[in-house]
Amino acid sequence: MSKINAVITGVGAYLPDYILTNDELSTMVDTSDEWIMSRIGIKERRILKGEGKGSSDLGAKAVADLLKKTNTSPEEVDLLICATVTPDMPFPATANIISDKVGINDAFSFDINAGCSGFMFSLATAAKYVESGMYKKVIVVGAEKMSSIVDYTDRQTCPIFGDGSAAIMLEPTTEEVGVIDAILHTQGFGRKHLHQKAGGSCKPASHGTVDAREHFIYQEGKHVFKHAVSNMADVSVEMMKKHNLTADDLAWLVPHQANNRIIEATAQRMGLVKDKVMINIEKYGNTTSATLPLCLWEWEDRLRKGDNLILSAFGAGFTWGAILVKWGYDPK
Amino acid sequence: MSKINAVITGVGAYLPDYILTNDELSTMVDTSDEWIMSRIGIKERRILKGEGKGSSDLGAKAVADLLKKTNTSPEEVDLLICATVTPDMPFPATANIISDKVGINDAFSFDINAGCSGFMFSLATAAKYVESGMYKKVIVVGAEKMSSIVDYTDRQTCPIFGDGSAAIMLEPTTEEVGVIDAILHTQGFGRKHLHQKAGGSCKPASHGTVDAREHFIYQEGKHVFKHAVSNMADVSVEMMKKHNLTADDLAWLVPHQANNRIIEATAQRMGLVKDKVMINIEKYGNTTSATLPLCLWEWEDRLRKGDNLILSAFGAGFTWGAILVKWGYDPK
Repeated sequence: MSKINAVITGVGAYLPDYILTNDELSTMVDTSDEWIMSRIGIKERRILKGEGKGSSDLGAKAVADLLKKTNTSPEEVDLLICATVTPDMPFPATANIISDKVGINDAFSFDINAGCSGFMFSLATAAKYVESGMYKKVIVVGAEKMSSIVDYTDRQTCPIFGDGSAAIMLEPTTEEVGVIDAILHTQGFGRKHLHQKAGGSCKPASHGTVDAREHFIYQEGKHVFKHAVSNMADVSVEMMKKHNLTADDLAWLVPHQANNRIIEATAQRMGLVKDKVMINIEKYGNTTSATLPLCLWEWEDRLRKGDNLILSAFGAGFTWGAILVKWGYDPK
Repeated sequence: MSKINAVITGVGAYLPDYILTNDELSTMVDTSDEWIMSRIGIKERRILKGEGKGSSDLGAKAVADLLKKTNTSPEEVDLLICATVTPDMPFPATANIISDKVGINDAFSFDINAGCSGFMFSLATAAKYVESGMYKKVIVVGAEKMSSIVDYTDRQTCPIFGDGSAAIMLEPTTEEVGVIDAILHTQGFGRKHLHQKAGGSCKPASHGTVDAREHFIYQEGKHVFKHAVSNMADVSVEMMKKHNLTADDLAWLVPHQANNRIIEATAQRMGLVKDKVMINIEKYGNTTSATLPLCLWEWEDRLRKGDNLILSAFGAGFTWGAILVKWGYDPK
């Protein structure tokens, strides 16, 4: 029996219409386009407007787009994993809600919470379910309404994040394509530098936590930046060495979009020219679990069967890692 | 090459000392020991006391117990999955925090949110990582400080839930033992009957949500009961039929501990006598993701290598399923 690989067979996405520009942000906090562009590299980000809307409203549209593009009916889907740090509700899982909204009524689904590494961790997990032969059609969706946890009075963090969603389909193949390898890490000591203080079991919501603005992202930028740069670069280079891949062998680096300087530092350590690095942070900002599939979606038409891609991310936890993917199809 | 199975090789647990009895509950809300015992079957439940404590404080002690019992050093652990609906913080993952607290500094870890089916879904997921050959020592821990989301003014739900944690070690084997099969389901329409209204991206914490008491478990008991009874029984019987197992072939049913009547109805449909059903709801109540491993922990000394166990759960989502486990060791 041939080894089964899990191959990406399609990408879908959804970005909300509203564009929050640096200029508009400058009217909300003491910042400027020049400050944001030079330090982070973001020009604008999308925001999901509308009372009561949540990440599933983004995720369901991305999954619907994926189902349409891959000509898949909802009944065919076996498993849907949603990576998110902004679930609709603390429970049940947003994966269940997305499934329900797109008509997937008889699949297995759950959420994985792993910060900005959520999509990568979910992709690795989904691949195991496919490789084992258990499931044939598995969706991994990153869906984030980051604006629900961004403090728009905090000039350090509010320019960084945006809302968005993207999803991939994973299927079995006996060809030598798909998810080839994953190197995944977490180190919980990093939690002190990047977290949300209230709303969990340590500190449930109260008038005091609302007044103290503790339901937003708390980030010590310098610490996170330092660890992100070294860890994303280290693990990406480790993946290249492990598989004897030179920069020439790689078609693309698909990096988490948190900061342009982190991306550049990673690419440099890998010896990659900028033309081989997917960067769309300028348009969407950091959409957390959605950054990697949003890149794949935007670059889909330029990917060729057999292309070697390294996906790499770093996020809250700390969590980080790299996944080596051999792309499975030519432009359709 | 022989097929690799993922086998449970140890169980650890931690229950906080404080016992909340039905009599004490009767002083808090309009209820009584007779009412609770006849409708749910719970006599007492454990509560984690202490300002700022969260689910990781429970989970870390359960994992520490597991490491000790299985003579495992933290460095040996490859992956830790935490099933919880009560994470310490909305992010990062409680799995990372537990790992850090017990000295697991170089593993991969993430949380799975799947309501009361969280442990079952996490066990199935962990098994895939072991079966694929990727990891050798994987911990699955259910950790819940349910008291952080229980409304102790709601007489319908506050008697049900308790705090607790338990963990299992999963390792590869080529013997015919371990996680044999999993049938797992979710149906998102069930979210309207069981959820937490506020604290997610649809409705972030505010003074209004705190005043409206929307950061607690909302449950329409009758609907949940009805679906739990039929789905847990159906999927458990389906698992028996799929593997040609009669009631005589089964050593134990390991059911989620939400309600004694749900457990009895499931056992009856399976044709199991009460002696083959693990029930400890009377002592601990519904500890959500911790119920199944708490049962395994309590019954560990009565389990024999080769015993057929069916684990079955139902919870928020809706989520449900059954896992067939062939037990891997005799009492040590």
